[in-house]
Amino acid sequence: MQPFIPTERTQVRRLPERARYDRETVHAILDEGLIAHIGFVSGDQPFVIPTTYVRVDDVLYLHGSPASRMLRTLEKSVSVCATVTLLDGLVLARSAFHHSMNYRSVVVLGDAREVDDSAEKLRVFDALVEHIVPGRSADARPANDFELQFTKLLALPLNEASVKLRSGPPNDDAEDMSHPAWAGVIPLSLRASAPIGDGLGASTLAAPPYATGYARSPDAGGEGP
Amino acid sequence: MQPFIPTERTQVRRLPERARYDRETVHAILDEGLIAHIGFVSGDQPFVIPTTYVRVDDVLYLHGSPASRMLRTLEKSVSVCATVTLLDGLVLARSAFHHSMNYRSVVVLGDAREVDDSAEKLRVFDALVEHIVPGRSADARPANDFELQFTKLLALPLNEASVKLRSGPPNDDAEDMSHPAWAGVIPLSLRASAPIGDGLGASTLAAPPYATGYARSPDAGGEGP
Repeated sequence: MQPFIPTERTQVRRLPERARYDRETVHAILDEGLIAHIGFVSGDQPFVIPTTYVRVDDVLYLHGSPASRMLRTLEKSVSVCATVTLLDGLVLARSAFHHSMNYRSVVVLGDAREVDDSAEKLRVFDALVEHIVPGRSADARPANDFELQFTKLLALPLNEASVKLRSGPPNDDAEDMSHPAWAGVIPLSLRASAPIGDGLGASTLAAPPYATGYARSPDAGGEGP
Repeated sequence: MQPFIPTERTQVRRLPERARYDRETVHAILDEGLIAHIGFVSGDQPFVIPTTYVRVDDVLYLHGSPASRMLRTLEKSVSVCATVTLLDGLVLARSAFHHSMNYRSVVVLGDAREVDDSAEKLRVFDALVEHIVPGRSADARPANDFELQFTKLLALPLNEASVKLRSGPPNDDAEDMSHPAWAGVIPLSLRASAPIGDGLGASTLAAPPYATGYARSPDAGGEGP
């Protein structure tokens, strides 16, 4: 796949060694994430709203109610920024100054367009359920015509995107190495606990494997304590 | 504590029953979170950048390098939006349409001002380390004069803020209750695994309790698998 070409707006200037522009890394972070923080301008005021999303090929899809400020603003095809951040760990250095976090984040810039085609909407809503809980779309009752009409869907093409990430141990200054404090990383990951059925209808039966074994990141276990 | 007065900009219009404006809830979410997504406008383009932060009383502090686009833009005291989102679970309804997430998010709007006073900066940097890893600030080497000078600190007063949250089981439509799919919630939380020392100096000794027992949310265990 062709890498993203850094633009004046997506080029990472601060700590450029932490930047990535290859499409594989952008896709992998978007596919692991569950929430995007969407930035848009209404009046002169920036707003940042968390929302679910799904990537299909080179398009990021956002959806929601027609009543939301975000969707009402974005349907006018104004500039948008979608940021997805995965937190991988806390970096404890010997100096307070070099404390940091291990993370992977994608910033996507562009204009969103509204999707009107019902077939495309249905396909994307299935993909969205499947992105959040792989295996679920086969069990859920698909959207009907009213629900398709009622739900707005916006498409943000992945044209301008960049990744910033940090991994590994702390980077202390040489003169701090004798400071008598433990230094290293506390790994963090988003993990699932045992699913809680709503106790109605089919939920009186056992939860399906995609719920009991839910794991978001490759190295995070399924059921928690 | 006095609640926040909803403004035209912070009043939650979509699903207002999910809104909160009390200061205790705003503080609790900010204090549990680790990353804020900061929205600002540069040119006509909104940017959303993840960053650490700390709340002290009724001020949200952001910090970073003088080279960052975010801090260079915000020091001009332009309008900013800081959003902190905690993801608590995936909500699996019988219909694809009613799939949702359980979450708690805070949106803060305002103008950031740069903090120049060295004593205030030192106090806030200690509070920041303590916010991320309670107990750590006593062990880390505090910032020296050069580091204090080099690091920019911005203060965003908590004047305009609102919370949106969802909790509990799915809300299926009555006519979907006989659909033969399990429905319920997969709880999610950010959890720590065993800390990884960098193997140098004091890190050849055992990791401190604040690292081995790290837990972010009240009900998430410390050491993971």
